[in-house]
Amino acid sequence: MSRCDELGQCSSEPGRITRLYLDEPMRAVHVRLSEWMHQAGLSPHVDNAGNCIGRLRSQTGEKVLLVGSHLDSVPGAGRYDGVLGVLIGVAVSEWLAGCDLPFHFDVMGFSEEEGVRFKMPYLGSAAVAGRFDPEWLLREDDKQTSMREAMASFGLSPDELESCRYTPSEVIGFVEPHLEQGPVLERLEQPVGVVTGIVGQSRLQLAFRGEAGHAGTAPMSGRRDALVAASAFVQTVRDTALSIDGLKATVGSLRVCPNASNVIPGVVELTLDVRHLADDVRRYGVDTLVDAGHSLAEAEHCTFEVLEETAQHSVNADARLMTMLSDTIKECHGGPVLLESGAGHDAAIMGQVFPMAMLFLRHPGGVSHHPDERVELNDVATAIEVLGQYVLRLASDFSQHESA
Amino acid sequence: MSRCDELGQCSSEPGRITRLYLDEPMRAVHVRLSEWMHQAGLSPHVDNAGNCIGRLRSQTGEKVLLVGSHLDSVPGAGRYDGVLGVLIGVAVSEWLAGCDLPFHFDVMGFSEEEGVRFKMPYLGSAAVAGRFDPEWLLREDDKQTSMREAMASFGLSPDELESCRYTPSEVIGFVEPHLEQGPVLERLEQPVGVVTGIVGQSRLQLAFRGEAGHAGTAPMSGRRDALVAASAFVQTVRDTALSIDGLKATVGSLRVCPNASNVIPGVVELTLDVRHLADDVRRYGVDTLVDAGHSLAEAEHCTFEVLEETAQHSVNADARLMTMLSDTIKECHGGPVLLESGAGHDAAIMGQVFPMAMLFLRHPGGVSHHPDERVELNDVATAIEVLGQYVLRLASDFSQHESA
Repeated sequence: MSRCDELGQCSSEPGRITRLYLDEPMRAVHVRLSEWMHQAGLSPHVDNAGNCIGRLRSQTGEKVLLVGSHLDSVPGAGRYDGVLGVLIGVAVSEWLAGCDLPFHFDVMGFSEEEGVRFKMPYLGSAAVAGRFDPEWLLREDDKQTSMREAMASFGLSPDELESCRYTPSEVIGFVEPHLEQGPVLERLEQPVGVVTGIVGQSRLQLAFRGEAGHAGTAPMSGRRDALVAASAFVQTVRDTALSIDGLKATVGSLRVCPNASNVIPGVVELTLDVRHLADDVRRYGVDTLVDAGHSLAEAEHCTFEVLEETAQHSVNADARLMTMLSDTIKECHGGPVLLESGAGHDAAIMGQVFPMAMLFLRHPGGVSHHPDERVELNDVATAIEVLGQYVLRLASDFSQHESA
Repeated sequence: MSRCDELGQCSSEPGRITRLYLDEPMRAVHVRLSEWMHQAGLSPHVDNAGNCIGRLRSQTGEKVLLVGSHLDSVPGAGRYDGVLGVLIGVAVSEWLAGCDLPFHFDVMGFSEEEGVRFKMPYLGSAAVAGRFDPEWLLREDDKQTSMREAMASFGLSPDELESCRYTPSEVIGFVEPHLEQGPVLERLEQPVGVVTGIVGQSRLQLAFRGEAGHAGTAPMSGRRDALVAASAFVQTVRDTALSIDGLKATVGSLRVCPNASNVIPGVVELTLDVRHLADDVRRYGVDTLVDAGHSLAEAEHCTFEVLEETAQHSVNADARLMTMLSDTIKECHGGPVLLESGAGHDAAIMGQVFPMAMLFLRHPGGVSHHPDERVELNDVATAIEVLGQYVLRLASDFSQHESA
């Protein structure tokens, strides 16, 4: 946890934690993390997607078990989201010191999960899973720097992303430890829990376009105010989510143009984030809200446009990995809790290609994406022990399977 | 008008006109404008508030008549708002070539009227009118540059703003030519009109504060989403303005924090611009909307705060100057149109200290604060002729008054 505090110092903004994909503070994170990996017996390297990966090399096997999470953050983040899962991976390899595993053990520090800089999440795990679309390299951040330029100036080779890829035949599985970011384990007074699946998620970039004009002379009745239309949409997003069981829908980012106090807003661009465990319900929610956007724009003599839409399907945990993780918890601590993940994770991308399991840690207060994010020291110790035992169980199972 | 086009090239943004207080493009405007002033027989200088002023010196008198407008613009502006009034002043001094006036004739190019950079309008005319509060020097722009620093790096002396001041005893009056920025003259098919008064205006900086959180895991029902509260407020602002005759109320600028697609907005800061000809009605509108802000915030478990409020009272034109301007138009073109100004102008500040008159030019389409802003060549010629004749009439009246 003191290591989480230390990495929290690596930020692009004074006084709060903001670490975006391939920004300068990430370089400092790689340096510190690589030192700790070395100390834990891992051989670290940074791949061409900016992932920092350490390998505990097996003397006897060629396959690999992956454990980890992501190193980037949202703006104004807490200290644990992502980073804690990577450092638990490092701690587990220390816990395993002296064991010769029948497979390599790779601790994954993914470079990009939150999707802030290029409005595109899971870049690091997508490269590892072979799901990175080279067209993404053309995307630009708010300063018109392309992803390709960002990679090159960080010292990476954007044309050699294929080198980041692990093949399904070599990977035993990916296990991601992460804060729950929700209230379930705290309510049940359990330190850790096993994830059954990750909700599907739609992310949309939307625009309302009206007409800029003088705030003092344009009559109220004939205005085409893009912010009036967009604010009606924000209300509808919330009301629609409340009316569909289990649906979460959020407008998290909104920009006004020209954004001057005495000018009627001409254009508003905003994001829409929609999640549900059932992909069909999520799709229904998105369709309903896009229809509402068109109607609300028309009522204000504005236009509405979906600039971009990306989606992840819901992803289930691998039954065998999940069962063995549950059995390990049962032996260490009694009856395990199984719960779903309302947040997206790298495990959602990895789980499309490799067997996937997730271990959630209790999240006191449930406050996430915020400096008040907390975790209990004892719960972290429990997670490390559970994962250590779990790796030994997987090793034993693997050896029996190989010899059989 | 070609000079307006040329100054439109002086912009801090490619492809559109954005010229804020003391930014680099303003220096180029001063250079060009000073050349034209020289050609028109004016002696130009830049005062310590950044105003560019040219004097047509009288051989016989010590008092001064001021004519002009502002040189700054909103982001993404048109070519004429402000600049046209300054260049008409230069053209009038060319029109007056050879006349020895009984008073100096100063063409005023005010440095700051729109209030974009430091969220504070009328800085240039406030310095000239002796209404500049030194505390404003501490204000910061979006890049945390203070107004004092901005002045110093532009080569001005922020501690010698008193030197910009004209005294009421030396000023005969201030006359501002400006686009109407509204539909009245166009509907009445008149090239120019005389302003009776300028509406009062309140500008507020407001904040809604909730709690940031994870867009995927925080239940919809318990959220404290500052953008949901703020968007309800934007709706109420519009509805309230529609329900009070003559009231204009606009949310032109809105910023979300942290402004990431997967984070529930924790803070929203926004501006509110309220205008009405009757100061009491404007005050009633502001009070109603501030009350609504508190109620709407409470409904979303957020808080609401008025961070700052500035106001200008409505200002009437000087009766004598206005009558003489009307009489001049009557002689040149037949029955003059008298109309009120829905927009604030430097004349509103100048009119608190000096006798003030405004000449509006017909505004085809009425589109303002926008690249599509237009003006008719013939109307500009009419304005120059009317103002030239007006200055001669004032000179004649002044001489009779002095000798009497």
